[in-house]
Formats: sequence, structure tokens, C-alpha cells
Amino acid sequence: MTRLAYLGPPGTFSEEAASRYDASAELLPFATEAAVAAAVESGAADEGVLAIENSLEGSVTRTLDVLLHDSSLSIRHELVLPIEHCLIVRPGTKREQITSVHSHPQSLNQCRKYLEANFPNARQEASLSNAAAVEEILAIEDGAAIGPARAAALHGAEVLERGVQDSPHNKTRFVAVAAEDAAPTGRDKTSVAFAVAHDQPGTLVDVLHEFSDRRINLTKIESRPSREELGIYIFLIDMEGHRSDAPVAEALAAVQSKASFFRILGSYPRSDDA
Amino acid sequence: MTRLAYLGPPGTFSEEAASRYDASAELLPFATEAAVAAAVESGAADEGVLAIENSLEGSVTRTLDVLLHDSSLSIRHELVLPIEHCLIVRPGTKREQITSVHSHPQSLNQCRKYLEANFPNARQEASLSNAAAVEEILAIEDGAAIGPARAAALHGAEVLERGVQDSPHNKTRFVAVAAEDAAPTGRDKTSVAFAVAHDQPGTLVDVLHEFSDRRINLTKIESRPSREELGIYIFLIDMEGHRSDAPVAEALAAVQSKASFFRILGSYPRSDDA
Repeated sequence: MTRLAYLGPPGTFSEEAASRYDASAELLPFATEAAVAAAVESGAADEGVLAIENSLEGSVTRTLDVLLHDSSLSIRHELVLPIEHCLIVRPGTKREQITSVHSHPQSLNQCRKYLEANFPNARQEASLSNAAAVEEILAIEDGAAIGPARAAALHGAEVLERGVQDSPHNKTRFVAVAAEDAAPTGRDKTSVAFAVAHDQPGTLVDVLHEFSDRRINLTKIESRPSREELGIYIFLIDMEGHRSDAPVAEALAAVQSKASFFRILGSYPRSDDA
Repeated sequence: MTRLAYLGPPGTFSEEAASRYDASAELLPFATEAAVAAAVESGAADEGVLAIENSLEGSVTRTLDVLLHDSSLSIRHELVLPIEHCLIVRPGTKREQITSVHSHPQSLNQCRKYLEANFPNARQEASLSNAAAVEEILAIEDGAAIGPARAAALHGAEVLERGVQDSPHNKTRFVAVAAEDAAPTGRDKTSVAFAVAHDQPGTLVDVLHEFSDRRINLTKIESRPSREELGIYIFLIDMEGHRSDAPVAEALAAVQSKASFFRILGSYPRSDDA
């Protein structure tokens, strides 16, 4: 049985992503993204599942930092999970009884308009995770939690309403990481990170030409400051194609020759939802 | 007196940024980034201060969404604030008495290694904001909060230790927004957002050539999915120079002619810390 590490606790969207990735796997919760990666590197887990990007909140920088700096793991799969927040109560609690709403502050933020319209007088209480919020409201009267249906099922709580997030475009992209990336399928994607001197106009254009001249479609480009040095930026690029495809392999070799830092994060089957 | 809107409550890093931007301003706290922008647009405030990017957490997407979609405001200033977290207690509480640590989950995360090393047995408690955490620990015995020194001063709490964040590279870039951007100073920066068809290799290279051919240095480039349509990406680019400088003005006009969405977010004096 595959042992699959994920960012716990159980009942989070991360656990749901891990379970969708491999329904028969043994799911192992860890407290941080770095601990998930370390578990895979040490062999305590076979693979790890990490959130890498949310459509509303942007990149998950802790995951990127682990992939860029703190591990030698490769991305071997991507999956996109719609983030559906639910209003969760202790079984039997009615809407009109609710006097407090508990969740991770980010989730409360993502449901702000819903809460203002439906529970304008309820006190908002912060929790360390959505799953923890569900545990909290089971211990009190008249509280509601915001979180995934999975957390309600896990803790025996009741879902009063589904889809209470303000934006219908709330999705998180997760990646599975392991010692090796995936073999070509004919419909793949490759993620790469590299640094180029940022104060020379044209250096980035030069690099991007390596892709466009070979008709390689980029699906994401992002720059972020390097942790170590001011003025040095790291570029993260996702492209269509497998790193073993000739045009992709040539482009990557050319980019590597121009970069002060270069790391292929992995090739993996392209998700239709990404 | 200038009325300056910011993301409250008082005692947050946002308030500190607002106060550093204009020490004599009247500071007006609002509950959301959108409310800060709405206050400026309605004339209830003269300018607003918003966090736009953190060196560890990445872009503040709620601020970008407001600037891109929900307001016609322009960026007229940038300032970079080092994020120094402090260990804050009720006056007289000793380190060895501390049994719980309270803060926004993001701040607890940013101090995870410090807390593991120094308070391995303390219970971690989530708060809606760092400032709220300070209020909470004043009401109980033996609790500590993680937050800015400003929150401790505001609420009459005691700073036991400064600089307890794990990373020394924790900085947030704030922008001041108003109805108009800033006049040229000779050392400026311009922020622009635009969308180009993302499935044509070369379109982005084409656009970037408009900058590199004119020797315009880009200081940031980021792509993010559009909220409305899958497959459409919005690019956010910061460049050196004022939008009224001839090369910048020409490049922007050329980019606009190729883009399906185009908005100049503003020109403003360049910070040495950015």
C-alpha cells in the first residue's frame, strides 16, 4: 500500500486532495510542508501531496520554498480541487441558534460576504485549521464552523449548507512529489525554476525566446525574490510537454546555460482542470 | 490633515506602514482591502495604504484584485516594512509562566521554529489578527502573543523579546493608493497589468520585447489566472521609469495595442528597500 504524506490534520482540503490522488493509499498527516517533504525523502512515506497554488490566494510559497531549496523531490502529478466551504454545526443545532462562527482566518475571509448577509451578529472566532474549527464547535453550544464536508464527516458533525464561499472560482492546485517524476504520457507539463540576473533588460526575453522559438506553450510564469539575495529573482515556469520531448529538452538545456540557478521541478501528466 | 485608510485593527503592521508613510495623518482602520479602496474612492479618505507583497508569503492577492478589478485607484507610493514579530505578554508575566501562545495562524507559522525551540509545550491559539492576540493575552494569565511592538504599545502590554520570526528576510511591501499617481522624480517605478492570449507561444515574448528593446528594466513579473475565464492569464509587471518617460510611454502604448485587458496601476517614486 502506498504511504502518502500530506499537510494535516485529517479533515482538511489537503487530506481530500491526497485521498482523491490515491483512494487506496495510507494517508500520513504531517505538521508542515517541510515535514511532508522530509518524510518522502527519508522513505517514511512513498509520496507527498502539497498545495502549490490557490486561485484566490496565489502561490503557496512554503511549498515552493521546500521544492526550490529544501528538497530534491520532483513533481510527478498535479490535481485541482474545487474549494467548497460548508457551514458545519453540532448535530441538531439550528441556523437561528448560531451565535459564533469558527474557522481559519483565511477561510472566514473567503466567506466574508456570506457571513455578513446570513450571520451579521455572530462572533467570528479564529482556529488553527478548518478541521480544528469543527472540533471546537462540537464542544460548545450554538457555534458553527466553516470548513470542508470531509471534516464534518470525520468528526460526526452536520453540514447545514454547502458552497458558502463568496467566490465560485475558488480552486487549489495540489502536486504529488516523490523521488522521481512521471514518464511521458503524450499530454504532459513540466515545471522549472531558474534565476537570471534581473537588472539586465533583455535577459528574461532571451530566456523566454528559448521556449517561444520552439513553439513551447508556457502555462504559468512567476517571479519571486530569492530568499538569499536582494535583486536576484527566481522564475517559476510551467510549460506544456515532457522534459524528455526533444524541443523541451533543448530549451531547458539552453536556459540552464544562461541561468545562475536552475532546477527542473518535474514532468507530469497535465490536469484538464489546471 | 490627510485622512489615511488602512486595513485594521490598530496595532497591525498595516497601521505601522500607514504611520511611517505619513506620521501626521489621521489613520482610519477598515475591515477589508476592498473597504479601504472604497473609502478612498468615495472621498471618506484621501489615500489608502495596502500590503501588496510579502517576501515569504508572496503577493497579497486581495489587494491585487481590488486594484485590478474593483477600483480605479492608482499606486502613488511604495514602502517596504521589515516584519519584526515580538513575544508579547501581560506586564509582569515571566517567560517560564507561559503556557499558551496566541496569534494569527500565519504569524504562528512564521515563528514555528522559534516556538518549537523555546516553548515546545505551550498550546498554540489562533487569533483573527496579531492585534487581537495581544488583547486576548491581556485578559488571561500565563499567555503570550506574537505580534508587532506597535500592538504591545497600543494595548499597554510588555515586549519580552523582539525579532522572534524564523526568517531574517521577512519584509512586506505596502503601496499607497489614491485617485492619482505621483509626478516624476527621476527615480520612479511603474506598475502595469495586462492580459494576453496565453495559448500562443511567443505572445508574451512579443510583449516583453517592447520593454527590452527600449532597455527598460523589469523589477517584477508575475502571472495569475484571471478570475473570470480559465486559460486567460493576467500579467503584472513592475518596471523602472515613470509612465511619462518617453521609452516607458511608448512601450506601454505598444503593449496596450496587443492586450485584451490593460491597466496602468500607477507611477511612483522607487523605494531603496524594494
